[in-house]
Amino acid sequence: MEGTLKRAVIIGAGNVATHLASALENTAGIAIDTVWSRNIENASRIAAGLKSAVATDEISAIPRYADLYLIAVSDDAIADIASSMPPVNGMVAHTSGTVPIDILATVSCKGYGSFYPLQTFSKDRALDLANVPFFIEGNDEETAKALYGPAARISTRVIYADSSLRGKLHIAAVFASNFANALWGVADDILAETGLGLDILHPLLEETLSKAVLMGPDNAQTGPAKRNDQHTINSHLAKLTDPRLKELYSGLTNLIIARQCQK
Amino acid sequence: MEGTLKRAVIIGAGNVATHLASALENTAGIAIDTVWSRNIENASRIAAGLKSAVATDEISAIPRYADLYLIAVSDDAIADIASSMPPVNGMVAHTSGTVPIDILATVSCKGYGSFYPLQTFSKDRALDLANVPFFIEGNDEETAKALYGPAARISTRVIYADSSLRGKLHIAAVFASNFANALWGVADDILAETGLGLDILHPLLEETLSKAVLMGPDNAQTGPAKRNDQHTINSHLAKLTDPRLKELYSGLTNLIIARQCQK
Repeated sequence: MEGTLKRAVIIGAGNVATHLASALENTAGIAIDTVWSRNIENASRIAAGLKSAVATDEISAIPRYADLYLIAVSDDAIADIASSMPPVNGMVAHTSGTVPIDILATVSCKGYGSFYPLQTFSKDRALDLANVPFFIEGNDEETAKALYGPAARISTRVIYADSSLRGKLHIAAVFASNFANALWGVADDILAETGLGLDILHPLLEETLSKAVLMGPDNAQTGPAKRNDQHTINSHLAKLTDPRLKELYSGLTNLIIARQCQK
Repeated sequence: MEGTLKRAVIIGAGNVATHLASALENTAGIAIDTVWSRNIENASRIAAGLKSAVATDEISAIPRYADLYLIAVSDDAIADIASSMPPVNGMVAHTSGTVPIDILATVSCKGYGSFYPLQTFSKDRALDLANVPFFIEGNDEETAKALYGPAARISTRVIYADSSLRGKLHIAAVFASNFANALWGVADDILAETGLGLDILHPLLEETLSKAVLMGPDNAQTGPAKRNDQHTINSHLAKLTDPRLKELYSGLTNLIIARQCQK
């Protein structure tokens, strides 16, 4: 059997589906046959941007003989899709960083796996997928290899990753992305009191990120906690009135002090 | 009296001194006369990169009649410098985001203030200062205006900021930069268990930052806490063995949930 995938069905019409449908067709050379969404307008919008895809909102109406069925829906909706989808004669993959692939075992007569781009997608923001890491898992080696192919045509960074690796990756991403973003929200609130906004910190944050990646976060660390500057730390704590923010300030300060000791 | 500054003395030879000496001379058109450092080699290294500056390690040897004395040393060292420096016939400014300007009151016969670039500086990294916000404070309007001039030739974003504004800015920067960097350290450790490093998250973090600045952090928020996805939250907490990280995970998750409720 040849592992090359030529025809695909896209299940879902959100941000990930939008970006991947276009990349699969235009960069990986896989023709998108059908786009399914519960909402026919969303499916039609994606299909309209593709060469010859049709849109449908009936899951039973998707063709059974495509090579790849890409389930690009929210994590919570994957189980629903898997149970309502007819069994198909092609590989099935979801795009989730967290959902185990076994959830797809009964859907595919070929193989199943995960095709996970590690990025935050917005419908209206152009993204260079060439730099986005793709994590690939298959229920067997043949499936993994077949899914690796198109990913490697889209991106320069493709990595085989089982559910355990994807799980760790997800926790790391929650700390690094979701939680950092929450701290930027705190900063934005503090700045709002002065009439400024988060954009004033943008050059600083860009450079902080570049240095963290280049030098490692511990070597790049600066600030009062790094210097164990109790005078500044206490003056900051005295100025924070929200008990939640006080506690976070202390917790993160202690984390930095502890990390410096370990090194 | 004319507010234009023509000749400057740089006190300090660290990263900020290195970048500002060059920008003042080459971009703002202020000739650097002298570079002082406790360490003559560091002072000489900076002076060598300038048109006609001399290096010294004797604070009593600095010329008394320059227009600007820029004290670019660590926050903790400013008081020491201020008490050991001879009174001078020019304006004196420090480059700190946190130290009140009154610390310089006895040093200058003209005026004193703060000339604070909000950025993290490294000696060996080229930086485009044109995008770096400068915060200016003077003990009187004339001094503030005189300091504003060269800042506005170096950067497109110059803002008058008293000590209270700089104080809030600093707390915001600690949350947004220092604490985010600490979370990247946590992520780096988790990734190290899989053989990956923080660089695998770089495209995600770049995009997370761009979206936070563009859309606001609350609108840009994603992840299990944003969705109040207790199943994923509990599975992450179960996998974290370090009690400090467990507590931070809970604290930051609760912060995100609370912020979503407020909006």
